[in-house]
Amino acid sequence: MATRRSVEVYLDLLSQPCRAVHILLSCTGIPHTVRTVALRKGENRTPDFTKLNPMQKVPVLEDNGFVLTESDAIMKYLSTRYDVPEHWYPRQPERRARVDEYTAWHHTNTRPHAAKVFILEVLIPVQTGSAVDEVRLFRALSELEDTLDRLESMFLRRQPFLCGDDISVADLLAVCELMQPLGGGRDVLQQRPQLQRWRSRVQSAVGDAFDRAHAVLYAVRDRRTAKL
Amino acid sequence: MATRRSVEVYLDLLSQPCRAVHILLSCTGIPHTVRTVALRKGENRTPDFTKLNPMQKVPVLEDNGFVLTESDAIMKYLSTRYDVPEHWYPRQPERRARVDEYTAWHHTNTRPHAAKVFILEVLIPVQTGSAVDEVRLFRALSELEDTLDRLESMFLRRQPFLCGDDISVADLLAVCELMQPLGGGRDVLQQRPQLQRWRSRVQSAVGDAFDRAHAVLYAVRDRRTAKL
Repeated sequence: MATRRSVEVYLDLLSQPCRAVHILLSCTGIPHTVRTVALRKGENRTPDFTKLNPMQKVPVLEDNGFVLTESDAIMKYLSTRYDVPEHWYPRQPERRARVDEYTAWHHTNTRPHAAKVFILEVLIPVQTGSAVDEVRLFRALSELEDTLDRLESMFLRRQPFLCGDDISVADLLAVCELMQPLGGGRDVLQQRPQLQRWRSRVQSAVGDAFDRAHAVLYAVRDRRTAKL
Repeated sequence: MATRRSVEVYLDLLSQPCRAVHILLSCTGIPHTVRTVALRKGENRTPDFTKLNPMQKVPVLEDNGFVLTESDAIMKYLSTRYDVPEHWYPRQPERRARVDEYTAWHHTNTRPHAAKVFILEVLIPVQTGSAVDEVRLFRALSELEDTLDRLESMFLRRQPFLCGDDISVADLLAVCELMQPLGGGRDVLQQRPQLQRWRSRVQSAVGDAFDRAHAVLYAVRDRRTAKL
């Protein structure tokens, strides 16, 4: 009998792309082991981790000796290699192309714009002890608004999920980025009913996996609220 | 008899990702029609083009009514939908994951860093009539050096092409970005013999398609040289 295969993933759940990978693994029931790499403790810069990923970034997947970086590639690989429901990364070329189209766009839109708000409002003040740079924050928020406009008017224009009628890895990558500013107490979808409904659909589709992946982020938010 | 299918692509060959799509189409012999969208004339902002792609960006693919944006997604779709040689976008999950890993990394590394050099050295001075901002250019060049280091030490470490033993869509995306600063007379691989050898391998693998795609960029370089 073959040994039961189990993938290993190196994650820090405060990292948005790590949460997307974590939710996919939880939802699809792929046997896996989570190895936590705490970025704030510099665990991504240890010699062992650097040997695994010289880029010193998370997430990293290790599957039977095959080491893969980049959340986008990891999620597509898991969907292809394991027997997950088709909707996560459809095989039909046009439907698959829609997921690839969003993920390519994501890297220079949703990801940097939502991340920047969190970096300016939470990370930099915590690391430097300085006040929030309101001018840069204002600019980052307006760039994020452009991205939110496009998510609504283009990707969600005629469909309930970003790339079609059902949830895909694209929705996980997007929702985890858009949740990040919540660590600073900011819900960037507060004035966006259409995107709120989409987020609710994603939450319903993935169930408990959503809150389990976001527990650390909620804790960051709650600690900040308690201090105020 | 079915009508022979021909894809339409909307391109400006001064755009790096457009050249990558163009080379793939030329090399693989997929029947196609090129529709030129001259960015410098604002042809990407006409009502007709905006209807096709509300993002007002090139490249755009139209295949029998299916409209797709994002060069990364377009190249993967063409490789999947048409009967192109396997190496362009391998089907085997681990080999395919290597291509997806590079392309994900590309969007926030090779692409912005090489593009910035061209923008600072050519586009901004042409558009504003002002001198090159040497401080910003120096910073952009040093960011690009980091990217080149990683291309050499990671992706090309043990293999002739970025994602394995043969050329893939990843090499096309990368080489077209790294050629761009040549429009300003700068060969960013001049001190990089390992990357020069890789570029030569890519050129050999794609033949004439390389120079045909780059003819407009060479013309930009030559006009500048003539002025000096």
